[in-house]
Amino acid sequence: MNDGVIINEVGLRDGLQNQPRLINTEQKLQLADKLIAAGIKHIEATSFVNPKAVPQMADAGAVVAGLPHSAELNYSVLVPNMKGYQRAVASGMKNIGLVIAVSDTFNQKNIRMTLDTAREMCFEVINQAKQDGNTIRVYLSTACFCPYEGEIKVDRVHQLASQMINHGATEISIADTTGSGVPNQIDAICRPLVEQFKDVIFNLHVHDTAGQATAMVWAGYLAGIRSFDASIGGLGGCPFSPGASGNVATEDLVYLFEKSNINTGISLAGLSSAVRYAEEITGQKLGGKAMHWYWSQQKRLNLVK
Amino acid sequence: MNDGVIINEVGLRDGLQNQPRLINTEQKLQLADKLIAAGIKHIEATSFVNPKAVPQMADAGAVVAGLPHSAELNYSVLVPNMKGYQRAVASGMKNIGLVIAVSDTFNQKNIRMTLDTAREMCFEVINQAKQDGNTIRVYLSTACFCPYEGEIKVDRVHQLASQMINHGATEISIADTTGSGVPNQIDAICRPLVEQFKDVIFNLHVHDTAGQATAMVWAGYLAGIRSFDASIGGLGGCPFSPGASGNVATEDLVYLFEKSNINTGISLAGLSSAVRYAEEITGQKLGGKAMHWYWSQQKRLNLVK
Repeated sequence: MNDGVIINEVGLRDGLQNQPRLINTEQKLQLADKLIAAGIKHIEATSFVNPKAVPQMADAGAVVAGLPHSAELNYSVLVPNMKGYQRAVASGMKNIGLVIAVSDTFNQKNIRMTLDTAREMCFEVINQAKQDGNTIRVYLSTACFCPYEGEIKVDRVHQLASQMINHGATEISIADTTGSGVPNQIDAICRPLVEQFKDVIFNLHVHDTAGQATAMVWAGYLAGIRSFDASIGGLGGCPFSPGASGNVATEDLVYLFEKSNINTGISLAGLSSAVRYAEEITGQKLGGKAMHWYWSQQKRLNLVK
Repeated sequence: MNDGVIINEVGLRDGLQNQPRLINTEQKLQLADKLIAAGIKHIEATSFVNPKAVPQMADAGAVVAGLPHSAELNYSVLVPNMKGYQRAVASGMKNIGLVIAVSDTFNQKNIRMTLDTAREMCFEVINQAKQDGNTIRVYLSTACFCPYEGEIKVDRVHQLASQMINHGATEISIADTTGSGVPNQIDAICRPLVEQFKDVIFNLHVHDTAGQATAMVWAGYLAGIRSFDASIGGLGGCPFSPGASGNVATEDLVYLFEKSNINTGISLAGLSSAVRYAEEITGQKLGGKAMHWYWSQQKRLNLVK
């Protein structure tokens, strides 16, 4: 852990998975190139899910095969179960993400498993990953709020996190899936975990549904979190459902940290090209507020010239 | 100062001043009623500026005359100079706001005074207010960034704040006029002031231009700020200029604080009616993200019934 923070770009996975327009492999790889050119070094590249359930991720193997490699680039992929894990590993991936909801009902509705079954599935995959020498990030989804159960008690998040860590998870992502959390809640969830488990990487995954995303990220940073998921242009959510908003925009976090003299290694100018390209391939208007602010300032500077 | 925070509603002033559609006095007073019904107790009601410069505020006296009164309601108004102060006081107002930019160039462009002249004007009004037994809040605008000078050094904000306080200002508002600040900057500005001047009320006035508004408010809260400006529905800025965004939405701050168990006395349900009414009279789509989240949840609950 250095003085800066890790921005883990999830636009290629969480950002694209519900897009109505099919994005082809070549476009995904071009987007990855633009993200890397902007300075992004951590990318969640795809998800090895059932292609029938998520057609947008049907080319997971091809995406992984086409990614550029260098010593400083870190890729991860998401898998829903052991079958997905095996496909991911067969493709050559070594950093694997798993998802389990803190809410029992959400697991049942979303992945058709009880919390107990989902936990056993996670343990099984973690065991295999340990044998294979791979890393496992476990996403604890609905960490703040569940659409079916309402507010989630902090103790339940801590308990599930401890179970996953004690079983061998190398990284835990606190995921405010609905984007309805607030900074105090993030502090209450993250601070004790960061203090208790010094060897574990904690990540924060937030959506901007209720306008609290950058506030939650700042609260997470103050609580000791140094890794944050974000999606280029705020891509994600369900474009047809105004309630389900995208991940916090990568550029909003880069703006927050870079202007606070906390290094991300990422440039807003580079992200600008990536956002423009994401707009082109998705046919959507994109861009976090920091991107629009950047664009308005560039326009002003050009007018002054 | 209690355990909660003050949300100072500025929608009737900062929110309406640049609206293209003229809002009449009756509509302003109805909006005030709805805000009060939602639990808002601090309202910046209008501005005693030159009606030729800001036609939307030409009815300042009539607005003040029409406001409802009770022991718990606190009104303030903005004035640009001694003439405005005298008009405000003649209307019966006792809590007066003044604006001075930290940036010399911004003062010259915006109010056609040098920083020195603006400072003298503030001193003169403060002197008069002390004689009259009125309170003076001084807004330090462009506290983070000036469109002409760029980043503003923290020392300059501290110096101007000290000068105003030493001269008798009872309250200081740190105003990120462009909305381009970040939480670290707010912390650096606010924390030393709150620690040094225990008897002064500090307020934070932010815009959400770069997606940092709730993060800045949270940073301000952690630095000891307990008073925050906000505008119903995010009303404000210039509707024709995407770069100039409105104040942070009242509902986003109410959501932030109430869900963090920090009392505001304001209800989201009540704000919902106020936002709908503000949409009706301005002809604009409004609502902070927390309002849209609230609406989506209400819709879901109604569907479930």
